[in-house]
Amino acid sequence: MTNTIRAEVITIGDEILFGQITDTNTQWIGTELTNIGIRITRKSSVGDQTDAILQILNEAHQRAEVIIITGGLGPTKDDITKKTLCTYFGVGMVRNETALALVTGFFEKRGREMTDLNRGQADLPANAQYIQNDWGTAPGMWFEHDRGDGRQCIYISLPGVPFEMKHLMTNRILPKLQNTFALPIIRHKMIRTIGIGESFLAERIEAWEDALPSHIKLAYLPHFGQVRLRLTATGTDDALIDRELAEQTALVMPLIQKHVFGFDNDELETVVGRLLTDKNMTLGIAESCTGGYVSAQITKVPGSSAYFQGSIVSYSNDVKVKQLGVSPEILSQHGAVSEETIRAMAEGVRHAMGTSAGIATSGIAGPDGGTPDKPVGTVWIACATANRTVTRLLTLGQYRDQNIQLTATYVLNMLREEILNQ
Amino acid sequence: MTNTIRAEVITIGDEILFGQITDTNTQWIGTELTNIGIRITRKSSVGDQTDAILQILNEAHQRAEVIIITGGLGPTKDDITKKTLCTYFGVGMVRNETALALVTGFFEKRGREMTDLNRGQADLPANAQYIQNDWGTAPGMWFEHDRGDGRQCIYISLPGVPFEMKHLMTNRILPKLQNTFALPIIRHKMIRTIGIGESFLAERIEAWEDALPSHIKLAYLPHFGQVRLRLTATGTDDALIDRELAEQTALVMPLIQKHVFGFDNDELETVVGRLLTDKNMTLGIAESCTGGYVSAQITKVPGSSAYFQGSIVSYSNDVKVKQLGVSPEILSQHGAVSEETIRAMAEGVRHAMGTSAGIATSGIAGPDGGTPDKPVGTVWIACATANRTVTRLLTLGQYRDQNIQLTATYVLNMLREEILNQ
Repeated sequence: MTNTIRAEVITIGDEILFGQITDTNTQWIGTELTNIGIRITRKSSVGDQTDAILQILNEAHQRAEVIIITGGLGPTKDDITKKTLCTYFGVGMVRNETALALVTGFFEKRGREMTDLNRGQADLPANAQYIQNDWGTAPGMWFEHDRGDGRQCIYISLPGVPFEMKHLMTNRILPKLQNTFALPIIRHKMIRTIGIGESFLAERIEAWEDALPSHIKLAYLPHFGQVRLRLTATGTDDALIDRELAEQTALVMPLIQKHVFGFDNDELETVVGRLLTDKNMTLGIAESCTGGYVSAQITKVPGSSAYFQGSIVSYSNDVKVKQLGVSPEILSQHGAVSEETIRAMAEGVRHAMGTSAGIATSGIAGPDGGTPDKPVGTVWIACATANRTVTRLLTLGQYRDQNIQLTATYVLNMLREEILNQ
Repeated sequence: MTNTIRAEVITIGDEILFGQITDTNTQWIGTELTNIGIRITRKSSVGDQTDAILQILNEAHQRAEVIIITGGLGPTKDDITKKTLCTYFGVGMVRNETALALVTGFFEKRGREMTDLNRGQADLPANAQYIQNDWGTAPGMWFEHDRGDGRQCIYISLPGVPFEMKHLMTNRILPKLQNTFALPIIRHKMIRTIGIGESFLAERIEAWEDALPSHIKLAYLPHFGQVRLRLTATGTDDALIDRELAEQTALVMPLIQKHVFGFDNDELETVVGRLLTDKNMTLGIAESCTGGYVSAQITKVPGSSAYFQGSIVSYSNDVKVKQLGVSPEILSQHGAVSEETIRAMAEGVRHAMGTSAGIATSGIAGPDGGTPDKPVGTVWIACATANRTVTRLLTLGQYRDQNIQLTATYVLNMLREEILNQ
């Protein structure tokens, strides 16, 4: 087994540290490094402070073979990464002519004047390998530095702008890393379950989990009524690894089949879209307490207009009567949050939209509106198809946002199960 | 000036390190700590590895007075934070009866059975102060540990689930930190603008910005068609700081009044809700390309049922005709994405819902569906009231999610301006 190549990812920038902007870079880099078999051991964010940067570089090189640094390469005063790298490596700056030509061309093409600060972006620490940036003005840099124990450490410095960083990584850095190291193959398989709590799932698959070979790990990733099971396999033969992951998946599926709605990046709304398409079915949605959220999930999926006709968000009872044909008697006898009403809403929208399936939600999302009979979190969902109408009562908590998201998850899963029953 | 209290934030979890889920916790915690005057010096992510966790704790306590750790507190085998903390502090585990009662109650209330793994969530390292978690089953933990140099280091361990972590931080941890340390007063005032680009805004308020006293900073936070101006004042007298912030706000408002839609946490949907309520107006929504997203924004606001009647998500042309009364001739002559159609949709939903105002969206969200005449990003919006119907053509980019969000922002702002004109 090849020695694992370890990497640390460091972002430089006060605005990330203080939480003012969302750091999307480290997640993206994490995925990409994992995909080529490099093991990330740590991700860190430090501020625009020379001492903080020097300190973390001093630590990191003892712990990793690859260090990726993003940020601090802009043309203004608080961009100090390069100067700090010069201090760290004990070298001076050298102007790189190719970089200068690129920066100059960038400004000429846009008819803008260049300042000395801009020209300074072409200066690099003397020991840097120049990595050409065709998507911005700050070059990437690659350093190979002796760790002092006979091993080299690779330092990679990239701009923090996500668009530039991603292009540099994809086109220059990742290939260079693959050429530099003999890397193991790491592959994931995600099994997406719904309708079973994490600890019940764990009990059910315990024997299978304990029997996993040492090079295959399992992680549980719970999120809003769903639990993702992530299998990670490491090795040197990608065909073998793919086969092993498929075998392990086949072994666990019978234990949990009923709860599995998809794999890898399948979201409920994409799975539902695929099933509707496969069965040549169309969908209409009636929403009360979810207020448009369920429809928005369905329409996140490009191409959803092929199976989704439309929705009625019947926030008031008048609209339930006028647009969905719910009878006023049902509403006055049983109320909006009742099995009778939800059944009428699901069947009503199926009729109004002329679709194969109609789903509906009606409940008390909170924080107000609850009564002793029907407290906050009381939600009815239903799914009407040519076969039948199924209804279900959910007893959720008191948080509005959570209640809306969970209701959407459960009604889409109900739809999924009904489509599979057709 | 009081000694700055430094904090490090550590997330534990392979899935964050490998990039499989988005880490939203550290950004949120960063903002909250900054808001109470604690200086974050580093943020790190490590995997579910005992050695990696021990190593970073050993480093961090030398660099910070507060260490916040999230993740690894679930009931399954890969949740190792508590065991690792026992090893780190050299203590054993003790079952906490209050925690056990809470976990038991959590399962009973949901009519679900508890496993030993669940009961194990009530076990805590012997030196932990129990932090009650009313939003999940894993208790928070607070440790006070001698650093060996006469100073204490506070270690805080919280679940990684964002919903639970935020409630624990807001309700328990942040107040406890404020009671533990003498912290400087930091106050923010947020001015929320829309319809003006960041650099134009900066030019307009440049003289005012340059004249700000040194203890008041300004940050520009652009996001999806809006720019938030955040004033941050630091000091020791909160009444004085509040007065200074109010004065500076009064000074800048005349320069940008037209573009200011709210302050602090006002979202467009809350501001719109307030205006509709003040003017005794009601709202109906017709959505095509935004597919339910605009309605979901309106209904995120508790109490929106007081002014929001409902929506028609007319994803297909049939539904535009049947439910909104758009004439088939208009659709065949001008197409769904046209001024004629959007006007008919806004007026149609106003009629169908019986409301004071109707807003509508129709466009090509992408990535498919564009033509040379109407490329991806071509979106019409409209607002119909008793006074008049206004329409507007947006020319957006090629990214579906972005287009949906921007369209929602612009149509809600159009509604806001029309209500103010009533």
